[in-house]
Amino acid sequence: MQYNAYAAYEAKANLKPFSYDSGELGPNEIEVKISHCGICHSDIHLINNDWMISQYPLVPGHEIVGYVTGMGSEVKGFREGDRVGIGWQCGSCGECHLCESGQENLCGNSQATCNGHHGGYADYVRSDAGFVIHIPDGLDSAEAAPLLCGGITVFSPLDRHGIKPGMKVGIFGIGGLGHMAVQFASKMGAETYALSSSPDKAREASELGAAGFINMKDKNEMLKHLGSFDYILSTISADYDWNSIISLLKHNATLCYVGAAPSPVAIHAFTFISKQINVTGSAIGSPEQIRKMLEFAAEHGVKAMVETVPMSDVQNAMARVVENKVRYRMVLENK
Amino acid sequence: MQYNAYAAYEAKANLKPFSYDSGELGPNEIEVKISHCGICHSDIHLINNDWMISQYPLVPGHEIVGYVTGMGSEVKGFREGDRVGIGWQCGSCGECHLCESGQENLCGNSQATCNGHHGGYADYVRSDAGFVIHIPDGLDSAEAAPLLCGGITVFSPLDRHGIKPGMKVGIFGIGGLGHMAVQFASKMGAETYALSSSPDKAREASELGAAGFINMKDKNEMLKHLGSFDYILSTISADYDWNSIISLLKHNATLCYVGAAPSPVAIHAFTFISKQINVTGSAIGSPEQIRKMLEFAAEHGVKAMVETVPMSDVQNAMARVVENKVRYRMVLENK
Repeated sequence: MQYNAYAAYEAKANLKPFSYDSGELGPNEIEVKISHCGICHSDIHLINNDWMISQYPLVPGHEIVGYVTGMGSEVKGFREGDRVGIGWQCGSCGECHLCESGQENLCGNSQATCNGHHGGYADYVRSDAGFVIHIPDGLDSAEAAPLLCGGITVFSPLDRHGIKPGMKVGIFGIGGLGHMAVQFASKMGAETYALSSSPDKAREASELGAAGFINMKDKNEMLKHLGSFDYILSTISADYDWNSIISLLKHNATLCYVGAAPSPVAIHAFTFISKQINVTGSAIGSPEQIRKMLEFAAEHGVKAMVETVPMSDVQNAMARVVENKVRYRMVLENK
Repeated sequence: MQYNAYAAYEAKANLKPFSYDSGELGPNEIEVKISHCGICHSDIHLINNDWMISQYPLVPGHEIVGYVTGMGSEVKGFREGDRVGIGWQCGSCGECHLCESGQENLCGNSQATCNGHHGGYADYVRSDAGFVIHIPDGLDSAEAAPLLCGGITVFSPLDRHGIKPGMKVGIFGIGGLGHMAVQFASKMGAETYALSSSPDKAREASELGAAGFINMKDKNEMLKHLGSFDYILSTISADYDWNSIISLLKHNATLCYVGAAPSPVAIHAFTFISKQINVTGSAIGSPEQIRKMLEFAAEHGVKAMVETVPMSDVQNAMARVVENKVRYRMVLENK
């Protein structure tokens, strides 16, 4: 079957229509007719070959929601017409200790939905059935699409690190990831603060569930919160004075990265020792965690704030993302 | 009463005899007649004012073992003649949430046994009773003294971070701290490796319980262990290529600092994210942890390998420590 997509034919190129023959459906594969696909910053990094791993022609898109239209002979648990989602990962080795312990997201042979495999800026896509997740009723497809990558990226660490009532949690960076993290952390019961250098986001942060907003450009405001946070999730991908973030942490508290700055994080061992802080990071999430996240989102009304545009308008949509004009997540829609 | 000690009268000075009047014994204080006092690298940092916190005249010494000779009116649980130890800390505020949760070692008003208070290179010393710990029978006083600071420094993280059978643990740096850490980790049941650039320490590491030795100067040897460690404790205080240490860690594994290098640790956020590693640190231990550590040491035969010299020979003993000639811990003894 012929799939119609948008692809970058080379690094940094504009997206152009691209059709490809999907070939035979593998025994463990599922075909999904795409209704929605979020635009994630990773798509832009892939298009630009920022990570030196891109394979062209490259069809971006890994925040996919759609309907099952085909199943391989060995697929179980799905029916035609099921509403499903696919995130960053569409396959793994299935045999290593990470795959066997439900940490497929960390598998060394992880396959990306939109690199070395054609992604979701398209009418159809395919994935290994193990990475196709049912979307619970009650979640809107457009609002659910960004949960598949951005959502799980922030839910997984908050969940694994045991965020709960009684904790004071900071979400550093209120954008595509951060605006979902504020919702998840506050719905987990934590006293959640939005940490941002854009004070005009304060009201929205409050509506998303934040107990407070800290303007990171205001030293006095920061001083009030010194040594008070149990946990800070950093979603920004720019360099920063990380010691100022660490100054907000309590003893034994955790700073977790889900956004990667270009320069190394430089922290004195003495800081690790004297405050016994933990610095860590988190990479997307396993299919099981994605299921848990979607259930949590459906139960607690967590959703991405989205701007939806027709798939055919992808190039303009991408430009708005690059210019940081979207609040907070752009979603392409097939009509 | 007059206490006789050795003090540095100014930064980097040789130690000279120093006597001081101890004054009244406070209601919560204990007086200890010192039999042994270990020499810790922190003593040398204090003498040299490396941390810019030293108060002179400075009587070093915070790995103290001796006998109770006096108790304040409100002291309970001790008798004259009890064999006891005192480590880095001799007091805390007693009121903050850290003190109240058994983390006195992290208290912002922690008092040091040998700065702002005269330490253990002396015949007598005093401490708040809350920081005086009974030494279990079966531990030799000279071999127990270094447990009070060096020992607890490595035991606390290994214990708090749940080192247990089935884990592969690396102890980076086989010196005063590392040689005790190898014993603790292996007695906790972990498959423990000594990581060192001194291959001549391999046999001793094995005798201390190490399952193996990795010569950090041998790239091929390191390659065999890539991505295999659950936990690495770094005891070195020199700069290092930390990314090579991290390359030895599994996903979700932990690198814990108890030694502080002069330059910041520089790690890309992408490394934290892709491996979901944790980097943390640990600062001495609470009185309760010290008790637990001493019980563990007595039960499992963990002890410092010591070179014992008379207290009067302190200046020569210090020189041997500075020249890194001691295997592995120097202890001063009052005859």
